[in-house]
Amino acid sequence: MIGKHCILELCECNSVKLDDEAFIRTTIQMASKVAGAQLLNLITHKFVPQGVTGLALLAESHISIHTWPESGYAAVDVFTCGDQTMPDKACQLLVEELQSKRHSLKTLRRDTPVMISNALIN
Amino acid sequence: MIGKHCILELCECNSVKLDDEAFIRTTIQMASKVAGAQLLNLITHKFVPQGVTGLALLAESHISIHTWPESGYAAVDVFTCGDQTMPDKACQLLVEELQSKRHSLKTLRRDTPVMISNALIN
Repeated sequence: MIGKHCILELCECNSVKLDDEAFIRTTIQMASKVAGAQLLNLITHKFVPQGVTGLALLAESHISIHTWPESGYAAVDVFTCGDQTMPDKACQLLVEELQSKRHSLKTLRRDTPVMISNALIN
Repeated sequence: MIGKHCILELCECNSVKLDDEAFIRTTIQMASKVAGAQLLNLITHKFVPQGVTGLALLAESHISIHTWPESGYAAVDVFTCGDQTMPDKACQLLVEELQSKRHSLKTLRRDTPVMISNALIN
């Protein structure tokens, strides 16, 4: 398996935090750390009138967060490669830090087409 | 629906192109354009001894590419929001530009948990 890709939908989050670019940056840094990943670069963008996007380039792939404060919603991806990383821990941290009261987590294995016939493992 | 997330596995690609950071940058810029998306920021990283990661921050979400030249493989995500973008066109361009002879494309809808019970639409 090349990697594990967690697709996380966070609902009923704290809207103030979802719209706080500095908070999103710090939270992505924390998420990288608890996942056991190496953060190589991090870019964020604050949209007008609301919303933040954060993209973390990891040695082991990436974390992305897109927020819709007006809906209390964030779309998160945590994609990590290798056996040493724990993307589930990053997801759990994001649920807690963004104070999501309702979430959905799906995990895909990323691999060559021959290997992904059973791509949805959770 | 918040957005459409294309998960693309590219196999049997041109390994030289997969390892060419400048080529990956240019290709992501082209992919953003054909998708009808607005590219706000683009970061890339060249790994040693091989491999490139590219992350594009779009006004409409993101594009990510992670390459394994030694396997001829690239893991691609094209996540766009709104009705005006065409992530499928970006995927088709990436298949062609990276000269993938075999690929797999899955499309997820991204939305709040209530709405994603039928998340896999393709």
